[in-house]
Formats: sequence, structure tokens, C-alpha cells
Amino acid sequence: MSSMQIIPPALERLIKSLSSLPGVGAKTATRLALNILRRPVSDARELADALAQLHSSIQLCSRCMTFSETDPCAVCADQRRDASIICVVEQPSDLMAIEKTDGYRGHYHILHGVLSPVDGIGPEEIKIKELLARIQSNTVAEVFIATSSTVPGEATASYLIDRLQPFPIRLTRLACGIPMGMDIKYADQYTLAKAIESRSNVLKNP
Amino acid sequence: MSSMQIIPPALERLIKSLSSLPGVGAKTATRLALNILRRPVSDARELADALAQLHSSIQLCSRCMTFSETDPCAVCADQRRDASIICVVEQPSDLMAIEKTDGYRGHYHILHGVLSPVDGIGPEEIKIKELLARIQSNTVAEVFIATSSTVPGEATASYLIDRLQPFPIRLTRLACGIPMGMDIKYADQYTLAKAIESRSNVLKNP
Repeated sequence: MSSMQIIPPALERLIKSLSSLPGVGAKTATRLALNILRRPVSDARELADALAQLHSSIQLCSRCMTFSETDPCAVCADQRRDASIICVVEQPSDLMAIEKTDGYRGHYHILHGVLSPVDGIGPEEIKIKELLARIQSNTVAEVFIATSSTVPGEATASYLIDRLQPFPIRLTRLACGIPMGMDIKYADQYTLAKAIESRSNVLKNP
Repeated sequence: MSSMQIIPPALERLIKSLSSLPGVGAKTATRLALNILRRPVSDARELADALAQLHSSIQLCSRCMTFSETDPCAVCADQRRDASIICVVEQPSDLMAIEKTDGYRGHYHILHGVLSPVDGIGPEEIKIKELLARIQSNTVAEVFIATSSTVPGEATASYLIDRLQPFPIRLTRLACGIPMGMDIKYADQYTLAKAIESRSNVLKNP
């Protein structure tokens, strides 16, 4: 008897649907589906409703391109934030990560991807056109490029630096170096090399 | 600005709902929700439908208590299986794991839990009454106890052995020992002690 018959079709369908999520394999999907089945039907219904309403409630902010239920989004609409700085990130999750630090009070621009010629993702496939439009029409003083320090993230940053060079704005990039609290002997050689290259002066008796 | 305002409410709702799944923390839930949002709305709808139909399609098999869309379930209805052996497991997922081995051709009984006095789970809270009814009414020759070799799994096995001793049936228990392919120096001392205690004779020139 195959496992297709042992597992009820309705359960199999949920397992298959859950397996399509990133980082969720067949075993995890089975565990999650069985857990949902053991819990009250109201829990499954709540999750189903949340899923069903997700796309209809959320759109892209027409300014920064982040996911939002309002347009402009809460960040773009916040008068207390500094609209003269635009922090360019790859994804809305990067915006959330930066917001969590409470260390940035400017605006954002979400690219929704990185340049990756092998995957067929060129400048037209990500929100670069929209970024250029903002810089041209607005009073932007600084563009702070906060793409990842991965190969495609760095390539995207280089491309943006080339494209933005002509504008009379300050261009900055997220610093690379040793993570806070890390013993340097555990840092990889590339990070360590970057941290040495980017070493900063220490002020004695300032 | 709190993260509640940065994350759109519809997304926050899905993240919260996903976080209630076992082994899914806030970070994983956020990653999953953002992935669902980036994918076509049809994917979210499929997952929502699968969730919505789960509980209505699936019930417990009235014989073995496993999750099934039919009653009796596919295993109980299969005439080629040996109905005189009942394998007692904790959860439907254990049945699936045993079926995958292709090494068992009898019937099952799902307890839907283990005895755990500290959590208030006594014999009445799991499907022991139903197991006793099957043994009393049926022509059962063997009860094969396949609860986990954890403390509550062993306690449940001991309790079942006590309760089933009066019946004229064979009582068996899943073997404990060194996992296949494991170097014994990596086995924990309890497993190794159990493997020594349960050592079997090797037949020379049988």
C-alpha cells in the first residue's frame, strides 16, 4: 500500500501546499499539517482567512515600494522622518530589520530583488526606475545603499553607484566588518580582510 | 515607530497565525509570510483552501483511530492485512513512519497521546478504552506496543502491559538498541546499556 492511500487526500493536499514554502520539506510539512489537524478547527480557519485576505489587503507603497495596506505607507507618511535620505534595500524584510534597530530615521526604497544576470534579472526587473524617478523629482540629499554584502548585493550596489554618480547627492553604503561580539578568530577571511581595509581611527583624548 | 505600524496588519495577522505552528518562531513566520506575499495569489488561495477543508474532510477511523477520510480507514479496510496483530502507536505520524518501512502488515491502534500525569493526561484522555474494546470483541492474537522509548512512551507501554496481561494474547514491544550504521562510541550510555541487555544470540552454522 503506497503512502498516498495511508495519508488522507485532504491531509496530503495540505502537506503538498505547505511543502512549497521556503525551507519547509516534506517532513516538516507533515508535522505542521498533523499539528493543525489536532488543533481546533478555528485555528485552521484563522490561518486560512489570514492567507485569503493577504493579497487583497496589501499593495506596494507608490513611493518606497514596500508592502503596505495604505498608500503612502506608514514610513513615507510619517512627517517626523527625514525624507532627504533614502535607504535602498533588497526586500521589505530588510526594511523591517533596519527598523528594529531604531537607528535610522530616513525613508526607504525597496528594490524587490537584486541584479542577477544568470537568473535573467536586470535593472528593468527590479525597482531601479522608480528610485531614479524619486531622486530626479525630490529633494534627496543622500542615498544610503543597504543591499546585502553578497555577490549579487554588491553587484547591485556597484550598479546603483554608477547610475547615481551624476546626481548632486551623497552616496553611502552599509559598513562591512566583524559582527558585534564576535571573536575575530571565528570571522571568515573575507569579512576580516574587509574589516581591516575599512579600519577607522580611534580618537584618544578627543 | 513600533514594528506594528511598519508591518501591514494583514501581514501581521498571517505572521501571528503562522507563529502558532510548532517550531515556527517569529522570524520564520515573517519569512514564510513575505514569501507567500511575493508569490501569485493563487498559491495563497490553494493553501487557504487546503486548510479550510482539512477538518471537514478528515475524521477518526472508528476502529484504529487514525486520521482518515473514510471509515474504516484504508489500512483497516485492506483485506490483505493481518487483523490479528494490532500495533499500538502514539500518533498517526507514527503509523506513517512504520508504513514507510514496508516491514509491517498488521493493523494499528492510535492512542493520540501518551500518559503524562504532570500534564493531566491519564488513561481516560487517550484512546486506551477503545483499544481494550477491540481486544475484547475481536480475534486479536498479538498487541505490538510501539510507543516511543521516551519516559512518557515507556510509562504508557508499562501501563498497557499491566492492563493487557490478563488477555490470552501475545504482547510485544518495539526493540531498543544501537541505531543502524551508528558507531557504538557515539551511542548514548542508556541506549548502549539497553542494547547490551537486549543482546541476541548469533547462530553459527544454523
